[in-house]
Amino acid sequence: MFVLDTRLHEDTWLIGDFPLCRLLLSNDSNYPWFILVPRREGISELFQLDEHDQQLMWAETTALARTLKDAFGADKMNVATLGNVVSQLHMHVIVRYQADVAWPGPVWGKHPARPYTQAEVGAIQDKLKSVLGVEFTFSEVQ
Amino acid sequence: MFVLDTRLHEDTWLIGDFPLCRLLLSNDSNYPWFILVPRREGISELFQLDEHDQQLMWAETTALARTLKDAFGADKMNVATLGNVVSQLHMHVIVRYQADVAWPGPVWGKHPARPYTQAEVGAIQDKLKSVLGVEFTFSEVQ
Repeated sequence: MFVLDTRLHEDTWLIGDFPLCRLLLSNDSNYPWFILVPRREGISELFQLDEHDQQLMWAETTALARTLKDAFGADKMNVATLGNVVSQLHMHVIVRYQADVAWPGPVWGKHPARPYTQAEVGAIQDKLKSVLGVEFTFSEVQ
Repeated sequence: MFVLDTRLHEDTWLIGDFPLCRLLLSNDSNYPWFILVPRREGISELFQLDEHDQQLMWAETTALARTLKDAFGADKMNVATLGNVVSQLHMHVIVRYQADVAWPGPVWGKHPARPYTQAEVGAIQDKLKSVLGVEFTFSEVQ
């Protein structure tokens, strides 16, 4: 049974689910920073997913990156799975701007997180509702 | 025509070629740090590759991560495409150890690079020759 890692749960807002992955919003308004977590148990590396899930994971990652780049007018998308701290497999899909606080460095550990208000998260959800396809199921606002 | 970005060329050792991607070794012996660059022109985001190339890129990335994890006894593999500095699409596939100098942080910008000697690169090439399959073509040692 899939259970979201406690730290991922605490540091993010739940947005909803793709066929394979849960979509989370990192609670750091410095960047539109999303995280995909495949709803599978006991997986920490990409290649531990079965072949079908690997293809889904890549497809959902790539499609999300494309969608976010347009919707948020990104200068660059950053896509990464590190997992040195939280071992549950998760893929960062981060909208980067040349004007953001960490540019051109990576976002991790650079600046203290700036938590969202619930209204800000609602605005991001509304934006996503206009661009994510029918394969995506939105959760209720937390 | 594909031309490797100048900075990638300067900061790495050439290892060889998968069907789609050039395999480079970052010239930083702090970590076994590899970089895949699809041999396509004018691509900076994953989703700019055509569908077939996307699948190849993901397949080569995942297979390389699996191979390196075993061959180098990694504690964790880090897989990331950032591209904020070098826009030519490239995928980092990095062997991480709990004992490495940046653990558990990401590797970028943490510590000065420690260049390899040619003998050290030769030893890594020898190791790779025993684990990379027939679809990989090794370049001559530089």
